[in-house]
Amino acid sequence: MSTPNQAPQPPPAERSARFLCVPNLSEGRRDDLIDQLVLASRDPEVRLLDRTSDPDHNRTVLTLLGSADGLVRSITALVHAAFDRLDLRLHQGVHPRLGVVDVVPFVPLAGVSMRDAVQLARRLAAQLADAAPVFLYERAAPRPERRELAAHRRGGLPKLIERMRDGSWPPDHGAATVDPARGVLVIGARGPLIAFNVDLDAADPAAARRIASRIRQSAPGGLRGVKALGLALPTRGVSQVSMNVVDPSATSLLRIVERIREEARREGVELLASELIGLMPEQAALGALSEALGLPGLGLDKIVEHHLAATPARATGE
Amino acid sequence: MSTPNQAPQPPPAERSARFLCVPNLSEGRRDDLIDQLVLASRDPEVRLLDRTSDPDHNRTVLTLLGSADGLVRSITALVHAAFDRLDLRLHQGVHPRLGVVDVVPFVPLAGVSMRDAVQLARRLAAQLADAAPVFLYERAAPRPERRELAAHRRGGLPKLIERMRDGSWPPDHGAATVDPARGVLVIGARGPLIAFNVDLDAADPAAARRIASRIRQSAPGGLRGVKALGLALPTRGVSQVSMNVVDPSATSLLRIVERIREEARREGVELLASELIGLMPEQAALGALSEALGLPGLGLDKIVEHHLAATPARATGE
Repeated sequence: MSTPNQAPQPPPAERSARFLCVPNLSEGRRDDLIDQLVLASRDPEVRLLDRTSDPDHNRTVLTLLGSADGLVRSITALVHAAFDRLDLRLHQGVHPRLGVVDVVPFVPLAGVSMRDAVQLARRLAAQLADAAPVFLYERAAPRPERRELAAHRRGGLPKLIERMRDGSWPPDHGAATVDPARGVLVIGARGPLIAFNVDLDAADPAAARRIASRIRQSAPGGLRGVKALGLALPTRGVSQVSMNVVDPSATSLLRIVERIREEARREGVELLASELIGLMPEQAALGALSEALGLPGLGLDKIVEHHLAATPARATGE
Repeated sequence: MSTPNQAPQPPPAERSARFLCVPNLSEGRRDDLIDQLVLASRDPEVRLLDRTSDPDHNRTVLTLLGSADGLVRSITALVHAAFDRLDLRLHQGVHPRLGVVDVVPFVPLAGVSMRDAVQLARRLAAQLADAAPVFLYERAAPRPERRELAAHRRGGLPKLIERMRDGSWPPDHGAATVDPARGVLVIGARGPLIAFNVDLDAADPAAARRIASRIRQSAPGGLRGVKALGLALPTRGVSQVSMNVVDPSATSLLRIVERIREEARREGVELLASELIGLMPEQAALGALSEALGLPGLGLDKIVEHHLAATPARATGE
């Protein structure tokens, strides 16, 4: 009700927070190593919002919030730490990858534009060109055929190295020679994306693969804005429909789960649980909840704790 | 990632925010009058989080966040403004009520206890005793038989006046004489509660009443922690199952909607939409979403915007 005239001066990390950056690291098993990488990424203008690791994917996804300068420092240090400590040749995991730091997408938040995020991606790419070949993807890609991450990944690192050698797919920054321990860097700018997985009660990934192939946007009758892969998760003895949901306003998470449930029923397998990798936008969470409850116009402002968290009192530890 | 050493000094309203207060006003039609009441409730140590009015209920629910002192000042001013401007004798609405300011519950938040909320309710009750008879309910009630709001409401204001006259139900504060324009005040302390309504595509409230009678906790096979009434909403030509959900961990909002859908199918009526009056706790929103998506361990920290709102940067308008 009151609007303070004298707003408190925010600390540097908060004052300058403008982008999300979601580096994907090809290491999801050795916690001590992941700890070291996270430590390397620390910066006064960057805040770690989430860290999710999976042993079967053998992958860690960090969600960082920060300023352009802070994120360039943070990711540069993270990449060098990963190059020092990880070796792609030893990596085993079900998730596709091209480097020990596999993809580094920037997402513009309130107050900055996609153009700013593209500029930031290209600035980081230029800065890291001496360390590894760098490819730019999504909105940061110089040409439409380079937009899709899948276009860079096609055939995996061996095929990418071939395409670099024959000159058909030169890196956007750096030399066309690959240190096989490091792999390449793929840096981009994109809108928010939800990494969302649904586990199936079947060790054999065949059903998960068929379901993924039927629900992905590119399939006839597929779900708009959904990219999907079917994978085995041997550690847990289950399989997974692993997804990137790039447009939750076109297809809600609830609709996705319902569709996978229908498809799974036809396959004779059961859904076990869903999983969120990293964060999701408010609109996606509350959109799915609104749909499930038939409750229109549900925003974060309708959640008690949102108002408490918004008070600086909590940040002071009061 | 960074932890500022020099935390900013929060403004008074935030520093002292400790309780939610959810006054229910018996006026939901005349926006100008409601504006005046909201204005009267302003206080530097109180923040208005939500204001929801309904013309059929003819009721407005305010959700205030503030300090004990701030809320006593705010509600005292609100009650006097309501007594000046509203007349219970002219009130027409489908929602039960006993006064122009019908109920004033306090909810303790982090850092304060239920005992503090009880103390606050009794302090406000003593302060308002000269203005109207005051009854204490829920945790602030002096005796178990006075806990349930329904016990005070039984038979409406006419029956309460009779019970006051015959000495069987004396007010907890103030004289046993009622100004019929004002009615009485019912003040209490309670845990979080979700006021949640589901509209049905039937103007006749008979089905809504039967559904309410079957799903409420007190019915055999009823839903734990759910209080329910069936009402007609003539303005919209529909009927409503109007609920207080006092334990969303026992019965999630999703389960409630599913149960009402089953019951409605038996009645041959359709669900139209749900409605939240005021706020809901994070756990209720994310619990229902977790259930709908099969996504365990979903917290507000998984929502991007939650982290942005938590940064003081937004409060400064930067």
